[in-house]
Amino acid sequence: MKVLIVNCGSSSLKYQVIDSDSEEVLAKGLCERIGIDGRLVYQKTGEDKEITDAPMPTHKEAIRMVLDALVNPKTGCISGLGEIEAVGHRLVHGGEKFAESCLLNEEVLKTVEECNDLAPLHNPANLIGVRACQELMKDVPMVGVFDTAFHQTMPKKAYIYGLPYEYYEKYALRKYGFHGTSHSFVSKKVAEVEGRDDLKIVVCHLGNGASICAVNAGKSVDTSMGLTPLEGLIMGTRSGDIDPSVMEFLAKKEGLDIPGVMNVLNKKSGVEGISGVSSDFRDLENAMEEGNERAILAVEAFSYRVAKYVGAYAAAMNGVDVIAFTAGIGENTVSVREKVLSTLTFLGLTLDVEANKKRGEDYMTITTPDSKVKAVVVATNEELAICRETVRLVK
Amino acid sequence: MKVLIVNCGSSSLKYQVIDSDSEEVLAKGLCERIGIDGRLVYQKTGEDKEITDAPMPTHKEAIRMVLDALVNPKTGCISGLGEIEAVGHRLVHGGEKFAESCLLNEEVLKTVEECNDLAPLHNPANLIGVRACQELMKDVPMVGVFDTAFHQTMPKKAYIYGLPYEYYEKYALRKYGFHGTSHSFVSKKVAEVEGRDDLKIVVCHLGNGASICAVNAGKSVDTSMGLTPLEGLIMGTRSGDIDPSVMEFLAKKEGLDIPGVMNVLNKKSGVEGISGVSSDFRDLENAMEEGNERAILAVEAFSYRVAKYVGAYAAAMNGVDVIAFTAGIGENTVSVREKVLSTLTFLGLTLDVEANKKRGEDYMTITTPDSKVKAVVVATNEELAICRETVRLVK
Repeated sequence: MKVLIVNCGSSSLKYQVIDSDSEEVLAKGLCERIGIDGRLVYQKTGEDKEITDAPMPTHKEAIRMVLDALVNPKTGCISGLGEIEAVGHRLVHGGEKFAESCLLNEEVLKTVEECNDLAPLHNPANLIGVRACQELMKDVPMVGVFDTAFHQTMPKKAYIYGLPYEYYEKYALRKYGFHGTSHSFVSKKVAEVEGRDDLKIVVCHLGNGASICAVNAGKSVDTSMGLTPLEGLIMGTRSGDIDPSVMEFLAKKEGLDIPGVMNVLNKKSGVEGISGVSSDFRDLENAMEEGNERAILAVEAFSYRVAKYVGAYAAAMNGVDVIAFTAGIGENTVSVREKVLSTLTFLGLTLDVEANKKRGEDYMTITTPDSKVKAVVVATNEELAICRETVRLVK
Repeated sequence: MKVLIVNCGSSSLKYQVIDSDSEEVLAKGLCERIGIDGRLVYQKTGEDKEITDAPMPTHKEAIRMVLDALVNPKTGCISGLGEIEAVGHRLVHGGEKFAESCLLNEEVLKTVEECNDLAPLHNPANLIGVRACQELMKDVPMVGVFDTAFHQTMPKKAYIYGLPYEYYEKYALRKYGFHGTSHSFVSKKVAEVEGRDDLKIVVCHLGNGASICAVNAGKSVDTSMGLTPLEGLIMGTRSGDIDPSVMEFLAKKEGLDIPGVMNVLNKKSGVEGISGVSSDFRDLENAMEEGNERAILAVEAFSYRVAKYVGAYAAAMNGVDVIAFTAGIGENTVSVREKVLSTLTFLGLTLDVEANKKRGEDYMTITTPDSKVKAVVVATNEELAICRETVRLVK
């Protein structure tokens, strides 16, 4: 089955076409600057990238351009739209309503809309993408795969905040967690390769957005992101955990209102804020090599917090069998993995320094064979995970 | 040497007179409702409490009443003010300026004033108490003992937030930590009783305000409170860690401004907010016995977060030798210690269920002798710690 995977932001749209039988990507790309001017990036697997500037007033025009590119007689990856048998949509926030992926019908979409309050930037954009696809691909079944769904198994003691309980009752104010598709994909992969479904796994999804998840026997029991993706680890430009009083302190000192402070915490903080260099770990590693002290501090602080969360989640599960690193930094930044694991040898693990330097494998073990706790690097693939969910529900 | 210990809040003042040779408390009490009407509570050791309602327009009148009570021919504990050879003041925030206790002179007091911005509620009140004592006890040496000082040994990767670095440079915005006097007292006691000064200790100071500290070979390397005492654990009425976005979410939903949200986070949250019952664990335990689900949830969530911090600090120190419980809840709430330790057996500890039920000892071990990691209950005594510091500096 050929499946179109769609991930809509407020002014962008990422897509892939995957053949679910071979699990190969046939084509992928993105639309940028939707509603501003518009640019389509399209790449058929094995071919060069094509970039087309063209007006995209709404997501509908963007989707139309994507579909046109897919069936283009010269460079397309399918011969007709009829070949697309299902569309899988990444949806950010399913609140407490969705503990699983879901076939999208009118009733379901209304329920998703009810969660808009919890993700006012992301959910409406996601829904615009769904509506646009529905208009252009009338009879094709659509599936929504939620970033939050995997974490709906968290126990209440893990997801409740230390706030007046009425806010949970009135507004569903609680920890939700994100990156669920990735945490689920990676923990499943670990269980499969290790051949055990009872493992206690800590998944470290370290990308520009970063979160950690405690997975006990296949179920998420805690995760570092919260009501929104701002909580938890120090990220590319997001602060992660801070004293809640920082908000008041900064507002006073810098003369900012609440949206002004939120803008700082979301867009000017994280390793970029600490280092003053970049949110990209490749830039940070270069700066570190040049002896840039703030870049060194940023990576130290980032890695230190990752290690503390691993320790916290070992406590949450009363033990840990496997620590899995994934996503951009998790898969590629050797020094971060080394720093994190160097302070976790008390758990009974020994880093295999040479193995940790390897790259490009889908699954690799980076601890020595005698380690009681194993650390692995796993290539995540959220699009493939969405594709598998879509096929499962459509079939 | 007889030492007066003073702990000033904005409208209250707690005091003790300690004989530093025997380390016995001669008398103690507090002044309440200073600036409102005024009430003195005085208790000579071994005698009944005396309560006197009397006007206290400022801290000066309050101190004067305390001194009068101390030398009262019938109920006093000293024969004349000349017997008080030193005063030890609890000071909340020493910023980055004070890594140790300090003899208070004009220059030092000015430096403390410079930290007022970091603790706008506490520091000015502390200083008023110092000034009032200075006026009434002109030639008596005064010592300031800071709540933050013990944590000044934290490495930068632990105290820096994931925020733009300029805020640290401009405003000294960072993690400071509090309860330092207690964390120091308890960790010293553990080192002394266990006869080792190289221990990795996690001190859980669990009172109405609560914080955890990682102490490696006598030095604080991390702690759960931050810029202010709001960060970290779920407390009596304080939220502790939350998604920073909660601020914006609550402001919008409840129509609150920043001070309004801060008021909720500081005074209406914590276990009281979750349970709707009380901030007092004795009330919560009673409610739990009656099957109150929100009280059960509050204690579960509180204990779960304590356990996670212990795990995180084991990671911070790459191991832990002793977990020490102290302060009101830490010393008295059997069920909390049991819940916390039940999820930490992976560290190599086994709870001694019977030992854990004992009360009233200054130091007791609550794990079995074969445990690799030891858990202990230690009675904290911040006044005695302040007394010792005061004597050390005066001598």
